[in-house]
Amino acid sequence: MTKVTAQELAKKQKEISVAEFFERNKHILGFGNQTRALLTSVKEGVDNSLDSCEEAGILPDIYVEINNHEDGECKVIIEDNGPGIINQQIPHIFGRLLYGSRFHAIRQSRGQQGIGISAVILYGQLTTGKHAKIQSKIEEGRPVTVVELAIDTNKNRAEVISRKTDHWDKPSGTRVEVSVVADYKRGRRFVYDYLQSTSIVNPHAQITFKEHDGTVHVFERTSEVIPKKSIEIKPHPYGVELGTLIKMAKNTKSRKLSSFIKSEFSSMGDRTTIAACEKAGLDRDLNPRNMTREQFLALHKAFQEIKIMAPSMDCLSPIGETLIKRSLKHETKEISPEFIITASRPPSVYSGNPFQIEAGLVYGGTLPKDTPVQIMRFANRVPLLYQQGGCVTTSAISSIDWRRYGLDQPSGKGIPSGPAIFLVHVSSTQIPFTSESKEAIADVPEIENEVKLAFRECARKVQKHIYKKVRRQKTREKFDLITKILPEIAKKSAKMLEKPVPMLDEIITKIMDVVWIEDIIEYEKIKRTPLQTTLVGENLDGQQQTGIITKSKILVANYKRTPQQFNLYALIPEDAVVGTVEPKPIKITNNYIKWKLNTIPPAKKVDVSFELAGLDKGDFDENDLYVEQINPAYVIGADKWEGD
Amino acid sequence: MTKVTAQELAKKQKEISVAEFFERNKHILGFGNQTRALLTSVKEGVDNSLDSCEEAGILPDIYVEINNHEDGECKVIIEDNGPGIINQQIPHIFGRLLYGSRFHAIRQSRGQQGIGISAVILYGQLTTGKHAKIQSKIEEGRPVTVVELAIDTNKNRAEVISRKTDHWDKPSGTRVEVSVVADYKRGRRFVYDYLQSTSIVNPHAQITFKEHDGTVHVFERTSEVIPKKSIEIKPHPYGVELGTLIKMAKNTKSRKLSSFIKSEFSSMGDRTTIAACEKAGLDRDLNPRNMTREQFLALHKAFQEIKIMAPSMDCLSPIGETLIKRSLKHETKEISPEFIITASRPPSVYSGNPFQIEAGLVYGGTLPKDTPVQIMRFANRVPLLYQQGGCVTTSAISSIDWRRYGLDQPSGKGIPSGPAIFLVHVSSTQIPFTSESKEAIADVPEIENEVKLAFRECARKVQKHIYKKVRRQKTREKFDLITKILPEIAKKSAKMLEKPVPMLDEIITKIMDVVWIEDIIEYEKIKRTPLQTTLVGENLDGQQQTGIITKSKILVANYKRTPQQFNLYALIPEDAVVGTVEPKPIKITNNYIKWKLNTIPPAKKVDVSFELAGLDKGDFDENDLYVEQINPAYVIGADKWEGD
Repeated sequence: MTKVTAQELAKKQKEISVAEFFERNKHILGFGNQTRALLTSVKEGVDNSLDSCEEAGILPDIYVEINNHEDGECKVIIEDNGPGIINQQIPHIFGRLLYGSRFHAIRQSRGQQGIGISAVILYGQLTTGKHAKIQSKIEEGRPVTVVELAIDTNKNRAEVISRKTDHWDKPSGTRVEVSVVADYKRGRRFVYDYLQSTSIVNPHAQITFKEHDGTVHVFERTSEVIPKKSIEIKPHPYGVELGTLIKMAKNTKSRKLSSFIKSEFSSMGDRTTIAACEKAGLDRDLNPRNMTREQFLALHKAFQEIKIMAPSMDCLSPIGETLIKRSLKHETKEISPEFIITASRPPSVYSGNPFQIEAGLVYGGTLPKDTPVQIMRFANRVPLLYQQGGCVTTSAISSIDWRRYGLDQPSGKGIPSGPAIFLVHVSSTQIPFTSESKEAIADVPEIENEVKLAFRECARKVQKHIYKKVRRQKTREKFDLITKILPEIAKKSAKMLEKPVPMLDEIITKIMDVVWIEDIIEYEKIKRTPLQTTLVGENLDGQQQTGIITKSKILVANYKRTPQQFNLYALIPEDAVVGTVEPKPIKITNNYIKWKLNTIPPAKKVDVSFELAGLDKGDFDENDLYVEQINPAYVIGADKWEGD
Repeated sequence: MTKVTAQELAKKQKEISVAEFFERNKHILGFGNQTRALLTSVKEGVDNSLDSCEEAGILPDIYVEINNHEDGECKVIIEDNGPGIINQQIPHIFGRLLYGSRFHAIRQSRGQQGIGISAVILYGQLTTGKHAKIQSKIEEGRPVTVVELAIDTNKNRAEVISRKTDHWDKPSGTRVEVSVVADYKRGRRFVYDYLQSTSIVNPHAQITFKEHDGTVHVFERTSEVIPKKSIEIKPHPYGVELGTLIKMAKNTKSRKLSSFIKSEFSSMGDRTTIAACEKAGLDRDLNPRNMTREQFLALHKAFQEIKIMAPSMDCLSPIGETLIKRSLKHETKEISPEFIITASRPPSVYSGNPFQIEAGLVYGGTLPKDTPVQIMRFANRVPLLYQQGGCVTTSAISSIDWRRYGLDQPSGKGIPSGPAIFLVHVSSTQIPFTSESKEAIADVPEIENEVKLAFRECARKVQKHIYKKVRRQKTREKFDLITKILPEIAKKSAKMLEKPVPMLDEIITKIMDVVWIEDIIEYEKIKRTPLQTTLVGENLDGQQQTGIITKSKILVANYKRTPQQFNLYALIPEDAVVGTVEPKPIKITNNYIKWKLNTIPPAKKVDVSFELAGLDKGDFDENDLYVEQINPAYVIGADKWEGD
């Protein structure tokens, strides 16, 4: 074999344009096969439309149409009522990879990379040779601009083929038409599933899907409220990379270290800034541009060692437990599951990026018992339909031993089998996807851990639910026995002895020796009279007014021999609004209502009730009750309060 | 909520540099956590070294050292004896993402993207703020250039911090030193596994690994032969994308369609070119630059419809069944498996890219019975250690119903459990990795299908193996009975009757009524005398001379009542060299030896034997025998020959 020299090898070295790279590696962008290509094309368009509507403060109205031509070519149309795109930006946004508005901003959004929609156009051009057609109108009364464009992959720039203006009825909006080679027959189901799942976690969006054969599916808007807009934040000092810190210091306008820290990081006030500088042994007046690597290293270390407030949640827009529960209920109504449980973790941080995990678990009903549990994954309100095996959420679920929760799992590892659906939602300013196709989340240990914690919480709730059910069932048998049979015996004995029927309350109390708490929940439709609107609360601004009042009635019976006095807590969903509460509670927070129950004599009962508005029927269908200042072992129907 | 206009949104639109993109998305490059970061850093360096040594025709000698500093920082050193890199190229190759020599070439190599090693340097800089140190020497007698560099992520260009020359003992080579934040404690095992697996499928490489504590592991070179250099080829017309075809036509120097097709595609001669043009209804003299989209569409369609020779295998460098078997044997020697089976598929094409699948299966021994089978994945001779769940090879394996092959698999889907190891190697000019971290292969249907076919072939061989074993066992019992007990009875009866012992051969034949074939294999060490070198064959050029002769002796006994005459085939490994063969065969190919056995009278035996060189002891440990021109139902120990 002849040797080749470095000079000869050098001749082959070349720059690779990013468009050329992805043209060759289209599978990285989610175009690995023709089924997936159809879904990716729709997904990138719809995600973009949702993002831009929300950013502009417009309730999204999205139209998706797919026409399947001969030879496996599909024309995909995505139209929205968003703010539109100004003329100069159209070629950049649609004809250039790695160009966008959301990459440099730290806040939750669906798109992050500036790749998605241009990738669809690149794929369309690669497979069909056709140009994409973009039309965009930015203001009522203006004409619409219609641009036909191609991508010059050698340069990663758009080639504008034609540009004209026209009339469009919409006040504003964007319409993308792109022809792609795709498998319509197999792909349409994925598109349908994706749009349905999207509509579940984006109840504020109206989505219309017109299939090739003319069938129209409308995923109705069920909420008139645009999700709280996530606020752009500065990087958080926890987990910021040393290299990023150095780069930030090089580019800062601050002349002093202290002002650099305070102005360019979130959660840093005077006190924490002083603490960080002191811990690092650095003069606060240092010019950050002149600092050495060692000084940055010290500062970087100090950041990890001092106590800094968690990043603000404003940059995140989680779905919320109620909505998750509602979605799961909706998804599973034909299954009549035994129970639905949700858990929401507090926000956390990885590499300086805030993130939050929400989880849900549906169990029982007619769900198949011997197949792996179904996992529904969402990232920033976008359903993830592919690459489940490569996703950190899957590995987190797989690492929990589910056997003790009654699911089947050989050797206590892997996806468990059993009648359950798991839902997980990751919201973050920066979802660490394993690839540009945004189908799976990378195995970042912080995220894996939070997903585990969320599902462990679900699992614990499952156990508690089952334990409570069993305990209450047992006590109820005893209760039924003595409250029904004892009086019968008493009556009969009295009759036989021709004596008056004795009072049994005290005897029953002696036998039971517990405080019995039970509750029922009722739903009442209300008309929107002014009175009721007030009842529903003045906090309703921005809340969904469903016209349903959820009424919770709690019965507390003292079957102990001594009078009882204790505190009772009822958990309430964060997004509910509290109406009438009886008796007067001593505290109401976002999460619970607290009563101090006055002394209940033996064999006496107290009624407690509260009303919730802002929920749909069934959103709240079981009370979660806790007691304090009483031995919880004596109480049936409530657990020990563990504190806020 | 206030509405935001398109103009306001436009202000935020920005270009994203590719370095900046990956700095933010380091998990995409395989730096998602600190354990993985260590492996990725080593892997990218070693893959690069192997590629450049092979390209230059040098037997690779690679040195890897990791020093673990306080604060979780590791200094990773990778040194090779490759051709080195010329001075001007150093900053580009190490300090720029998407720059390289292998992206634009269609041939098998480990690196394809021009991202890997620069990504390591980017990650090092991001996490430690330190510069990378590169030293490179391109020729004996020249000094070595030592460059310290950083990456300006806003521009995706290297910043050369310092450059000097020095003396280096090596004739030529490259050394990279980069500090990264990584988890040494957990990561070192992965590095060790990766280097070991790499050495298994790259027996021509010598790899030395020095751990932090000074322990040195040497993975010895076991072959002095550099793998056949894969040849750069032109794109194959099958599966070339329409967009790529149009782009090629726009850039071609050919003025005529026919010369464009012949000169820029592989496997296209005069005849196929004419056929393609005719099928497409296109004039061969058309100027390709002036063709319309419809004309390209017609040509593209015609390419798929005419018969074109498969792409040349020269661009691929598969491992080979013998080496796979040897590797598996080596890997599993402590397990003493029941059998090892391999399968190699013919090359195929996806999207114009040739690829080939090789598979192996180890069964039994002390392998655990109730855990999922172990899957060893390789792509272009690089072990894939992460993202197994997201890899097409895994989904292909999971889609086969393994229950009928004796493995445990609930509902016939998913990774089976049982005492087995699966190995799969994908070689391609373009491995469709799911992301730039090159850990999993995308679900390209053509690849999935070939992997399935390879494992089905393995599975069929397993079944055949078991069936053969059972059938031979049964027949042997019968055989033992009549060949041992009948003569005893005859002897005793003769003695009792005082008559001579009768000849039993004919009776035995009547009872057996089969042709019995059995074989043994022996290994003989040889000294390299001139005679034996000749025996070993003149084809040995470029082959490993192990000094082992594998001797296969086949006994063919006719226990049928009539004389038998038939053809016998013995399969041989492709990379073996055939020595003495007795009796003289009528055909020897790369894959088999064929004998025409002259009439064997009833109760007579024939000895057949052949010798193989170029194999290690145990590479060939079981004959695969076939018969022709005889009813295979009468034959024990060989199957029906199904043709070449």
